[in-house]
Amino acid sequence: MAKPTPLSGFPELLPAARAVEREVIDTLSRTFELHGFANIETRVVEPLDRLAKGGEIDKEIYVLRRLQADESADDTGLGMHFDLTVPFARYVLENAGHLEFPFRRFQIQPAWRGERPQEGRYRQFTQADIDVVGKDELPFHHDVEVMRVMVQALGGLPLPPLSFQVNNRKLIQGFYLGLGIPDVTAAIRQIDKLDKLPAETVADLLVEHAGATADQAGRCLELATIRVADHTLVERVQALGVTDDLLSRGLAELSSVLDGCADAVTATDGRVTVEANLRIARGLDYYTGTVVEIFMEGYERLKSVGGGGRYDALADDGRTTYPGVGISFGVSRTLIPLLADGVLAGSRAVPSAVLVALADEESRPVSERLADRLRARGIPCEVAPAPQKYGRQIRYAERRGIPFVWFPAAQPGQSDEVKDIRSGDQVEADAASWAPPEDDLRPTIVTPTPDPQEKTQ
Amino acid sequence: MAKPTPLSGFPELLPAARAVEREVIDTLSRTFELHGFANIETRVVEPLDRLAKGGEIDKEIYVLRRLQADESADDTGLGMHFDLTVPFARYVLENAGHLEFPFRRFQIQPAWRGERPQEGRYRQFTQADIDVVGKDELPFHHDVEVMRVMVQALGGLPLPPLSFQVNNRKLIQGFYLGLGIPDVTAAIRQIDKLDKLPAETVADLLVEHAGATADQAGRCLELATIRVADHTLVERVQALGVTDDLLSRGLAELSSVLDGCADAVTATDGRVTVEANLRIARGLDYYTGTVVEIFMEGYERLKSVGGGGRYDALADDGRTTYPGVGISFGVSRTLIPLLADGVLAGSRAVPSAVLVALADEESRPVSERLADRLRARGIPCEVAPAPQKYGRQIRYAERRGIPFVWFPAAQPGQSDEVKDIRSGDQVEADAASWAPPEDDLRPTIVTPTPDPQEKTQ
Repeated sequence: MAKPTPLSGFPELLPAARAVEREVIDTLSRTFELHGFANIETRVVEPLDRLAKGGEIDKEIYVLRRLQADESADDTGLGMHFDLTVPFARYVLENAGHLEFPFRRFQIQPAWRGERPQEGRYRQFTQADIDVVGKDELPFHHDVEVMRVMVQALGGLPLPPLSFQVNNRKLIQGFYLGLGIPDVTAAIRQIDKLDKLPAETVADLLVEHAGATADQAGRCLELATIRVADHTLVERVQALGVTDDLLSRGLAELSSVLDGCADAVTATDGRVTVEANLRIARGLDYYTGTVVEIFMEGYERLKSVGGGGRYDALADDGRTTYPGVGISFGVSRTLIPLLADGVLAGSRAVPSAVLVALADEESRPVSERLADRLRARGIPCEVAPAPQKYGRQIRYAERRGIPFVWFPAAQPGQSDEVKDIRSGDQVEADAASWAPPEDDLRPTIVTPTPDPQEKTQ
Repeated sequence: MAKPTPLSGFPELLPAARAVEREVIDTLSRTFELHGFANIETRVVEPLDRLAKGGEIDKEIYVLRRLQADESADDTGLGMHFDLTVPFARYVLENAGHLEFPFRRFQIQPAWRGERPQEGRYRQFTQADIDVVGKDELPFHHDVEVMRVMVQALGGLPLPPLSFQVNNRKLIQGFYLGLGIPDVTAAIRQIDKLDKLPAETVADLLVEHAGATADQAGRCLELATIRVADHTLVERVQALGVTDDLLSRGLAELSSVLDGCADAVTATDGRVTVEANLRIARGLDYYTGTVVEIFMEGYERLKSVGGGGRYDALADDGRTTYPGVGISFGVSRTLIPLLADGVLAGSRAVPSAVLVALADEESRPVSERLADRLRARGIPCEVAPAPQKYGRQIRYAERRGIPFVWFPAAQPGQSDEVKDIRSGDQVEADAASWAPPEDDLRPTIVTPTPDPQEKTQ
């Protein structure tokens, strides 16, 4: 069979890059679990009617059919999920009787969209989602909780600085209501276009589609320019002279989010900042309070690398409503461009920290037992594939990035030796006590200074 | 929207059961990495022509089409992989220039088959595969290696006893050749039916389809009854009076596999046994040497829960051949029946080891800071969702299986206290030094004595 070529939109990683992705996923999982979030994994398919939003089905869904099915029974009625929220909402409804609420879960899985691929947007992509879901009600403090958890989780990764830009739907809606805009929902939809269209065009759209006067449209735009990280937020909004109960509640919530995250942000040492940005609306209609989008410094072209918010009805089975608040982080969207640009890399392509050398084929069992003694102490290793000259065995280790080569004693009574092939230092060693430096134990994420010539995307 | 019902063949786990699956996957991954196997993850789709085996496409493949595609461009030409071997072979060909050979990889991912679901057979199921792949050649010692690694990996899991039943295609082929059977391949295919059909029927099939005489068919069946774990293997086969070079090579290889696994088997303390079973053929045509199937005690009805072997051409791009040897373990096939039967369970549904109690809503930040101090020391915890009476907060912890409740000091100068809610013991504690017993730190796999009444499947 001929050499296959990559499929556009379905990126795959070489082993060293995959080690980076695994380390990122493990770090995120550890933080989520420290905060009491339980992991779940949902099947990749959902009935098509579940994937429909408000009766309409997005065009980018992949639908499954069995290859050998009859023409008449062509489709299975199943499509692949395009995010992790739809399957999670279904899982909550299906298993509500077996879950304790508030239910905290995290989920790190791929999702699929049949759209045209571009940098940061793929047909298969991995997401990391956290959500807290309540039964009938979910107190506001969980909004602060998910923000703090995601700040801590992403603050633990060696990524370029991340900016959490937060807003509150109640604040926007209340402001528009207090201002007297006739169609508040339409106004939010227009304001959401500010990252694509010039302000004047959006002002015109507000007049045309939301029934705003030119003055009202102007004040909506003024609100949307507010971007602060501290208490001046309240003054800045109040200075616009609009009063409304919903506005006040939204403003108080947004202030609480900023306050609640302050110490978590400080602990990230500049890796993560959180600020109020009053033009963030998020297009999706189901958000009802806190909304957040996450941007990565130097990668603004990717748009947001994560986002989420509060939805008062994540799921509803006709009798019970399940409100939720959550944030999704785009693992593929973030890592694949960083790996391609050389901003992140894996320190090596194999888990092995040690290559156990092989004197001759007959002594393979000796080398294997030796390797097993190191493994029993948590040191990943492999035995040389062939009893070549030691120089060639060392080059074999070098090509794989294995830092140490272990030479079993040539004679009984002699001592084993281990060589650090980077420094060339070779010392006597005992498999019962020797260990590599902690940093060499497993592949790690390295952040080389990117070579500008390779930075092509 | 109405309460959804489960989709047949697409099992999903509740959080406590998912904790079991995660622990199993983590344990397997750790062992694979200790042996130098690198993890990769492949996309879920392959071009349909890659999924075809020998030109024919299995009927159970799920094919993707975009929901809103034109009728004329109905199919994407992509199907979902039905195992992890096909995508791995393609990955090796596609990336051969970037890989070092022999290349050891493990892969733990779902696969999909559109077939009728039954116990242990699902439409979506997770597999854990290890393979070693060489370029042009792959020495035999890697057959022993993958067997040893899988024995160690599965021996580290709290499963019912597992039996690795090993054979060698060269041994069977050589025996049939030495015996003078006209169609060796057909004979292997018939012998493979011994687990479904009575011996006499298989003897008739050997005569009918493989051109064997009645005497030859009888000796084939005699060979197939040999089942031993030690050196008597060689005598037993030689006693059948057939001599052939290929037979001798296969017999030597099979003996080496048994020998090479002996110490690894001993170390599992009875969890894993390895024996030669000369009726194991494995239906797939591409095996060329070692073949193995894994069975689980008390779950023989599942047939094998894993298997694999040596294939001299895992992949081939017309210029280079990539031989391989590997074993696949059915994670879903094994765990889902064990979880359903109550043989395995998760100790709790949440990661939290500690619930930090809440005196009143105003002191939430105090409880949050306290929780963060425990988290910084690796102790998963959550803060009570509401400032209910402490008795109700304790019951909240109880319902989730959280073993400890932490009571922050009521007054400055007083001490915090922590209660083990199982024993009722409550002691003074300091968040800078207190830790739960190791076993309580995270959810663990427990093996309750199953209630026979619940064991319904």
